[in-house]
Amino acid sequence: MRVLIIGGDAAGMTAATRIRAGAPDAEVVVVEMGRFTSYSACGIPFVVSGQVGGGVERLVARTPDRHREAGIDVRMHHEALAIDVAAGEVEVLDHHAGAVRRIGYDELLIATGGMAIRPELPGIDLPFVHGVQTLEDAETLLAVAEQGCHRTVVVGGGYIGLELAEAFLERGCVSTVVEKGTHPLGLLDRDLGEQVTEAMRAHGIDVRVGVDVTGFERGSVATSDGDVPADLVVLGIGVAPRSSLAKEAGITLGARESIRVDDRQRTSASGVWAAGDCCESTHRVTGAPVHIALGTLANKQGRVAGINIAGGDLRMPPVLGTAVTKLCNLEVGITGVTAGVAEQAGIDAVAVTVETTTKAGYMPDSSSMTVRMAVERGTGRVLGAQILGGPGAAKRIDTVATAITAGMTAADVVDLDLAYAPPFSSVWDPVAIAAREALKVI
Amino acid sequence: MRVLIIGGDAAGMTAATRIRAGAPDAEVVVVEMGRFTSYSACGIPFVVSGQVGGGVERLVARTPDRHREAGIDVRMHHEALAIDVAAGEVEVLDHHAGAVRRIGYDELLIATGGMAIRPELPGIDLPFVHGVQTLEDAETLLAVAEQGCHRTVVVGGGYIGLELAEAFLERGCVSTVVEKGTHPLGLLDRDLGEQVTEAMRAHGIDVRVGVDVTGFERGSVATSDGDVPADLVVLGIGVAPRSSLAKEAGITLGARESIRVDDRQRTSASGVWAAGDCCESTHRVTGAPVHIALGTLANKQGRVAGINIAGGDLRMPPVLGTAVTKLCNLEVGITGVTAGVAEQAGIDAVAVTVETTTKAGYMPDSSSMTVRMAVERGTGRVLGAQILGGPGAAKRIDTVATAITAGMTAADVVDLDLAYAPPFSSVWDPVAIAAREALKVI
Repeated sequence: MRVLIIGGDAAGMTAATRIRAGAPDAEVVVVEMGRFTSYSACGIPFVVSGQVGGGVERLVARTPDRHREAGIDVRMHHEALAIDVAAGEVEVLDHHAGAVRRIGYDELLIATGGMAIRPELPGIDLPFVHGVQTLEDAETLLAVAEQGCHRTVVVGGGYIGLELAEAFLERGCVSTVVEKGTHPLGLLDRDLGEQVTEAMRAHGIDVRVGVDVTGFERGSVATSDGDVPADLVVLGIGVAPRSSLAKEAGITLGARESIRVDDRQRTSASGVWAAGDCCESTHRVTGAPVHIALGTLANKQGRVAGINIAGGDLRMPPVLGTAVTKLCNLEVGITGVTAGVAEQAGIDAVAVTVETTTKAGYMPDSSSMTVRMAVERGTGRVLGAQILGGPGAAKRIDTVATAITAGMTAADVVDLDLAYAPPFSSVWDPVAIAAREALKVI
Repeated sequence: MRVLIIGGDAAGMTAATRIRAGAPDAEVVVVEMGRFTSYSACGIPFVVSGQVGGGVERLVARTPDRHREAGIDVRMHHEALAIDVAAGEVEVLDHHAGAVRRIGYDELLIATGGMAIRPELPGIDLPFVHGVQTLEDAETLLAVAEQGCHRTVVVGGGYIGLELAEAFLERGCVSTVVEKGTHPLGLLDRDLGEQVTEAMRAHGIDVRVGVDVTGFERGSVATSDGDVPADLVVLGIGVAPRSSLAKEAGITLGARESIRVDDRQRTSASGVWAAGDCCESTHRVTGAPVHIALGTLANKQGRVAGINIAGGDLRMPPVLGTAVTKLCNLEVGITGVTAGVAEQAGIDAVAVTVETTTKAGYMPDSSSMTVRMAVERGTGRVLGAQILGGPGAAKRIDTVATAITAGMTAADVVDLDLAYAPPFSSVWDPVAIAAREALKVI
């Protein structure tokens, strides 16, 4: 059996490793168009800021050579051009040799990942406009940061863009974020997103909201708020699935053009699987198909696909989109859905908000934190939460994610036996305080 | 209706507040033998160290006057001497007036709390030997710390004793811990407890294990390892329930002489309730009655008792004993049971251990952390966990506590959608990594 995998990052290489372990007789071939395998794209801002020294290689968890030592046939600089589902073959361009070959497969895994959304604007293809998705992108940004850029503009308010705005500020740049909507981190409710704006502004980042970018020209970004000088532009609008290969092969797409998969990561084509940022997920709360590009999910999907391809039987659980980031001095955590999103999905939802502290209030390094919890009216089922605050605030989102997964109600969360000591929490954990508040309104 | 409450700290005043809210016509009388109500005993080490300035009053969440303003008849320096269940009366000594009175009740809540275990050793009643339970104790310790003590000895390896050993070290004292067993924090497995010993020693605290204290005399603690000079001794062996009043009234006691209660906090005597460190709990994992003295549980039990006394219907959930502490540079979290305790309870348990990091491994301030997870063989049901590590490690215990409460298996924990970003976690959260490891052995 030959398994062919397109894409050598989180999903692809996790699957490859699982197949190697579960099907020792299988031939596992990975084609990767870049120079790197198994890297942490989430770490790019910390390399660019200089906080993580030693170059982008520091973000590589496992090199192609180490994968080869493990028996995986990794072919770098190999770009898949087309999938022939009927023939069971993929057309691949070997950039080194400059040759196109067809590689046959018994099972194919599409793990092509995502790509920065590039709006169709004048000048979008100018060389100073960068997406941030691969380590090759990171190398470029790091080089610019080390040369000493002067003015960077981040277009959009996604996680990695905001983190890069902070990274370039730390490098001494004038750092501007231009966001079309009312607030960065569009998944947050508006008032909470405005807390992010305030925190970033207080730190020295020029966050402009309600501003449209209309084009780029050398040294400048044109916006509805006037021209902003820039010697570097980072696209932080969001991530689109790399699904064109699948689409052209006639494979069914789903939410936001991501590749539709079942809960075993099978696509609509026989023998073809997908995993990672290129594919769809099912949302645990709404039941809806969604496209959520997160490293955590890519790893899980790769594991599920790999185990199943190797003959096992594992299902990908529905997702909550749990995510966390630290922006300037503010931690932000999110899981599940907001009350607004729940309402759109036909769930009768209500949100409660508590203002509390990360530690016992009398501790000198206690800082404020906000927990907003969305629950279903009537049943009290927990639907989601947003947490903002100082050190130690945001990772509490995991408690909520676990509670939602278990189908817990607000009353169940109040009953949880959560850890307390003054350096860690108030005696009722902020998550439980939010749940108590929810009990009053459901 | 008159409700009488004995004890004005967490359990008692939480209940009083709930009764006030739920039964506006009830008379609520609280007798408290000390000078303080509603305080955080867990904060004492941080006042003693000087980290929290402003004296022990900083630990008071609500003063007697504020409770009185809320309509609660709080009587300070009133010591309950005896409960007459048949007559529905409590004999109370008013230390101010020097008079003994009988106070009748329709409902009685015993919330007498706990007391430091005082072993029967020669010299145990010498004035330099202190328990740490009340703010009055805290005032004494703070006075000694501020006067500049030279040598402190903590007897026993309980949370608060260890935290005080660190507090006195910060005050410039020579600080010694004498522990009878193999390691401090006896709930931890031995090898993990030894990590605590090492961390405290590295910080400059003289931790002596396997050493018996044989007596006290002015300026010195006699031990099986020789005499240890001391101008202050703190008893940190553990907390016993203050249940003698209940016992003398013929009320049934349970685990470790704590007051037996049902899941509504009712004792064996009609119209008599108990909550807080004086009473028993039911362990969620083993189903066994246990005595666990924690502020989190005292608050929950007080809430349940108060709501029920006021005519509501709420049940106290079984407990996990989830706890967290920070000792020197090591965070420690624990929940549920160890494999050893599970085995004693007749559960076929196995433990797995993973050594991982608090953040992405490449982050410069990432530190090591250990997760040990106990699971049931066969079913994979999660039974408990111990987490040790650097900043951000221990509060993850809440994820495990939530998973245990939901009856999750190790496979369920692997499936959890937990938050990841390089400053917070590895891409698979350490808790999920431990669960993956558990899957291999069950």
